Amino acid sequence: MSHQLSVIILAAGKGTRMKSDLHKVLHPIAGKPMIHHLVEAVQDLAPDEITLVVGALKEQVMEAVPMVAYAEQKEQLGTGHAVKIATDSFKNQAADVLILYGDVPFIPASIMQDMLDSRKQSGAVASVLGFTPKDAARYGRLKLDAEGGLESIVEYKDASEAERNIPLCNSGMMAVDGTLLPTLLSKLSNDNASGEYYLTDIVEIGRKMGKKISVTHACEEDVMGVNSRSDLAQAEAIFQTKMRTKMMDNGITMIDPNSVYFSADTVIDPDVVIEPNVFIGPQVKIMKGAVIKAFSHLEGAVIGKRAQIGPYARLRPGTKLHEDTKVGNFVETKKAIVGPGSKINHLSYVGDSLLGKKVNVGAGTITCNYDGYNKSVTEMGDGSFIGSNTSLVAPVKVGEGAIVAAGSTITKDVTENSLASERAKQTEISGFATKFRARALAKKEKMKKG
Amino acid sequence: MSHQLSVIILAAGKGTRMKSDLHKVLHPIAGKPMIHHLVEAVQDLAPDEITLVVGALKEQVMEAVPMVAYAEQKEQLGTGHAVKIATDSFKNQAADVLILYGDVPFIPASIMQDMLDSRKQSGAVASVLGFTPKDAARYGRLKLDAEGGLESIVEYKDASEAERNIPLCNSGMMAVDGTLLPTLLSKLSNDNASGEYYLTDIVEIGRKMGKKISVTHACEEDVMGVNSRSDLAQAEAIFQTKMRTKMMDNGITMIDPNSVYFSADTVIDPDVVIEPNVFIGPQVKIMKGAVIKAFSHLEGAVIGKRAQIGPYARLRPGTKLHEDTKVGNFVETKKAIVGPGSKINHLSYVGDSLLGKKVNVGAGTITCNYDGYNKSVTEMGDGSFIGSNTSLVAPVKVGEGAIVAAGSTITKDVTENSLASERAKQTEISGFATKFRARALAKKEKMKKG
Amino acid sequence: MSHQLSVIILAAGKGTRMKSDLHKVLHPIAGKPMIHHLVEAVQDLAPDEITLVVGALKEQVMEAVPMVAYAEQKEQLGTGHAVKIATDSFKNQAADVLILYGDVPFIPASIMQDMLDSRKQSGAVASVLGFTPKDAARYGRLKLDAEGGLESIVEYKDASEAERNIPLCNSGMMAVDGTLLPTLLSKLSNDNASGEYYLTDIVEIGRKMGKKISVTHACEEDVMGVNSRSDLAQAEAIFQTKMRTKMMDNGITMIDPNSVYFSADTVIDPDVVIEPNVFIGPQVKIMKGAVIKAFSHLEGAVIGKRAQIGPYARLRPGTKLHEDTKVGNFVETKKAIVGPGSKINHLSYVGDSLLGKKVNVGAGTITCNYDGYNKSVTEMGDGSFIGSNTSLVAPVKVGEGAIVAAGSTITKDVTENSLASERAKQTEISGFATKFRARALAKKEKMKKG
Repeated sequence: MSHQLSVIILAAGKGTRMKSDLHKVLHPIAGKPMIHHLVEAVQDLAPDEITLVVGALKEQVMEAVPMVAYAEQKEQLGTGHAVKIATDSFKNQAADVLILYGDVPFIPASIMQDMLDSRKQSGAVASVLGFTPKDAARYGRLKLDAEGGLESIVEYKDASEAERNIPLCNSGMMAVDGTLLPTLLSKLSNDNASGEYYLTDIVEIGRKMGKKISVTHACEEDVMGVNSRSDLAQAEAIFQTKMRTKMMDNGITMIDPNSVYFSADTVIDPDVVIEPNVFIGPQVKIMKGAVIKAFSHLEGAVIGKRAQIGPYARLRPGTKLHEDTKVGNFVETKKAIVGPGSKINHLSYVGDSLLGKKVNVGAGTITCNYDGYNKSVTEMGDGSFIGSNTSLVAPVKVGEGAIVAAGSTITKDVTENSLASERAKQTEISGFATKFRARALAKKEKMKKG
Repeated sequence: MSHQLSVIILAAGKGTRMKSDLHKVLHPIAGKPMIHHLVEAVQDLAPDEITLVVGALKEQVMEAVPMVAYAEQKEQLGTGHAVKIATDSFKNQAADVLILYGDVPFIPASIMQDMLDSRKQSGAVASVLGFTPKDAARYGRLKLDAEGGLESIVEYKDASEAERNIPLCNSGMMAVDGTLLPTLLSKLSNDNASGEYYLTDIVEIGRKMGKKISVTHACEEDVMGVNSRSDLAQAEAIFQTKMRTKMMDNGITMIDPNSVYFSADTVIDPDVVIEPNVFIGPQVKIMKGAVIKAFSHLEGAVIGKRAQIGPYARLRPGTKLHEDTKVGNFVETKKAIVGPGSKINHLSYVGDSLLGKKVNVGAGTITCNYDGYNKSVTEMGDGSFIGSNTSLVAPVKVGEGAIVAAGSTITKDVTENSLASERAKQTEISGFATKFRARALAKKEKMKKG
Repeated sequence: MSHQLSVIILAAGKGTRMKSDLHKVLHPIAGKPMIHHLVEAVQDLAPDEITLVVGALKEQVMEAVPMVAYAEQKEQLGTGHAVKIATDSFKNQAADVLILYGDVPFIPASIMQDMLDSRKQSGAVASVLGFTPKDAARYGRLKLDAEGGLESIVEYKDASEAERNIPLCNSGMMAVDGTLLPTLLSKLSNDNASGEYYLTDIVEIGRKMGKKISVTHACEEDVMGVNSRSDLAQAEAIFQTKMRTKMMDNGITMIDPNSVYFSADTVIDPDVVIEPNVFIGPQVKIMKGAVIKAFSHLEGAVIGKRAQIGPYARLRPGTKLHEDTKVGNFVETKKAIVGPGSKINHLSYVGDSLLGKKVNVGAGTITCNYDGYNKSVTEMGDGSFIGSNTSLVAPVKVGEGAIVAAGSTITKDVTENSLASERAKQTEISGFATKFRARALAKKEKMKKG
């Protein structure tokens, strides 16, 4: 049984310019390894097979990208060599082969489809993806023939002045007729200055065989390649700009969009307001009317309608805030379900907790959920009021409507509607401070001299 | 008695592209509804009457903009129709009528005055506000006659190639001779593709009546209209850039001006230094020599000379910090008057409080000012020292020079110069930790298996 | 004995447009007075003498820039006058004199050397530093002769249209033959509109004496002058951009480089990841594999391998974090040595402290290191566990493997492997909360009416 579509992704080079122990294609953009962005787009095409060409740090890459086939390129002998190794490993010949790069993460599935369609519709043996950069610089140029097909790819160093004025550049990606690809690859030669097999040479080989080559067009951002940390930062910026525009189009207000960071999976309803300097990690959903104040850091959190978050709120995974809740400044939540109308306004840590409706958690409240080995749960019933600077030693439950006195360490469950406190008697030593200051000052003076 | 000046502000359309339940003109810029920016500028002209044309969500708009007259446009039949409804509602005919848009919030009063002056000085029936955008795009063009008067407004779709090359565009705003405005409006027709009455048609009508029309010039930023959340973000950016430039011109240092956010009413003395990432809400005044460190969030606060604020200080309304005070990291203040030289350096909440001179508030101090229903006041006398992790249960007063021992919950007033403490005896169970760890580890292992 | 190289730095004018009580050259860029940036570059040339021309606020400048010679310009009679005062004060005549400006802080030592070399190699009496700005504006133009030497400096106001089209502008800086400089200066005249002695006039004087003048080239950023707070912000931006690029080239990931602020002495290993909004003050070193999360503020801290910092971590001077440590949200450290694998995850202040290996510091822990006069040390032994909301009153030592119960105030040393606690009995008043709420609500209602 032959395949319809096989996709080859080249990811053998680790990316020396990244200066990293982590393989280049695993560096994250918006919190997700760049190659995942690419593989997810590829999956939209439902290919029969995805073959990753691995080499340097292959264990890292294979672990991070499971569920695909691998072909190992032991020596880095060029892109043509890498593709040959991949096709040699194919279980079945494919009608179409799409060749992509692991460090070019933003090719949309629609452009991939355009490449496949362009090749077939024009009866070409391959379709090369071209783009028109703002600064064409030293990219190879795509020289078209009279019919708009690709005549040749001219490397910058070999290009005449006229050829250098061609704005259309070569991205390196292509869709190829899978039945002819082995033939094309077999004719590649490494008889050139660097002694490598270049994939782009199949254009010339195809033309010599009397075949047409078509061109597909992408915009510069779509074919952006990542070779350095600066490129990585630029890729992140491209991604964030897209997300920010999408969010504003959907009715989200951002006072300074450039200071708000999203993840690929962030979901936000209209009429949410986000102040400057907010960082949103993976798996965050924010509902209508919520306000996210400045300096908030959100991950794995669901934020209900009209909730008010921050400034300086740090919501960690497993936080679920119901409608009309408030989480205020210097508050951290983790695995915390907070019922409607409840408030955690200041300087608290609420973890592994279950709060009912209209609970008021005072400033400085800590849920002691961890004993160094195990985590335990704290419950606070509807309408309970937790005084300031309270420690709730889990597992513990504060009953509905109960009050915990400020400064208490609560280790036993609190009965509903009762007042619980853990407190010694307030005592006073008259005049102590006067004497203390004299002593402390003397000591200070002595320290200075000594 | 006839009026000198009446101003009409069109605010009937809710702004569908905003995707909001809030009327477009009420979306805030620098914390203030955009229409307030406009109305405040209009008030500088001391008009006899301001008429707001309302329609969609009119209750919202009327509630947010009191102290003006309203005219309701029930059907959205065009700008000419809106202005006619407004003039029909006038108590008195005005010599001058200025027509503005609620979603064009940044017209300076000086430009409004220019429009009024231009009309009168040139003996024109109206003066249309033009601008020369960087990208003229699809704006209507202002075609001038030989004397520099306005010959006609040419809509982009009707414009010839030559007309499209005219850089001067129509903002839609105008000053009109109030005595002739009713006549002009009465001649408007809705015999056009969209079936609407266009205000701009009065230019042609006026010319046909043998009247002159003049042109007033504004810069692109002044006539910026807000139709989407992206526009709103751009308007905010324009506002912030102006404020940042003004602040720097006044002698304020900002390490990264683009990361500091001001309100329209922010007042700062020279020689104040602001680190990156500072958010300044309404009603903040900062005096000479103060330093605002990174990640601070200020609202309704007066900051005295040489005060050191932040990083991560959150000053809420009613905060008044005298000279040489310090409010440090992870500290929140609210309705707090802090005397000269006093310090609240770390991890504290000080609300509804009155601090004397040279008070030292230890880390983790919480004023328990709220019992779920009522707020109460905490006083800390001159030179008092509040130990760390203390809870001050208001109403409570710590006398001058008194010391509160760390970890105490203080519910009764503390005598001056005394030492107050609320503390149990420190006890120890020898070897407990060794046994505990064995048990906890066993439990952890069991949980894993189970 | 004659000198080889003397450097004159003009710093007499305080910079009125800065609107500051601080002399212009002392305003900091990346936390360091701008003149220090310049003097440090000068020191790379190992000059025999550096003479600072001081005037306004001279005490400030002399205190901030010790270890150089000073010449006082009592009246501001122009740059030529200032240089004359400096040369008059020379202890020895120098073969080469380099003339720089205290408010032009970014001239690289290599460009200074270029100026010296250019003069000597071309046999010129002086070499003037030119640059080609994006917007030449009103700068003086450098008019070259047929041999590429400098023919004259044409002030903008005196320039013909053709001369204004010259892109090469005068920076004002120059290297001069030290043996001829006194002669050149003696011929300067103040017979001009402003009645000042202009240093640039020595070009014409030298030419008249039959001497050659050469030109050295710099880029615009290198000769950037600071005259206002806006200029200062721009200088900071130039500096930060350079640092960010350098860091990325070295293998550091920044999600948004524009939101990360470095000091001149920041040292970071490859494979460090920095989230957005991180402020790095002086003397910070970060080792391989560490992650600095958003909203962190670091000064004087060494961060070990694989440490995880923030979000919202505030590391103050004297912090040394060993490998695999964690300092989490709303945590402040100061003079704290934290052993391998130790964690301070939430809402804590750890100062003047010594932590062993694998210590777990619970949320809300405060080291009470200050009694208002003296600071004392807290020690936490290997494997100790500090419960939440604990106060450790220094000097105090928690033994190895000991546990401190949550909510305790610890004033006495804790034996190793023991459990220490300071806690009263938890008590409960049944039904109290119900009655309390009724009373509090009544009071609230009464307050409203009253």
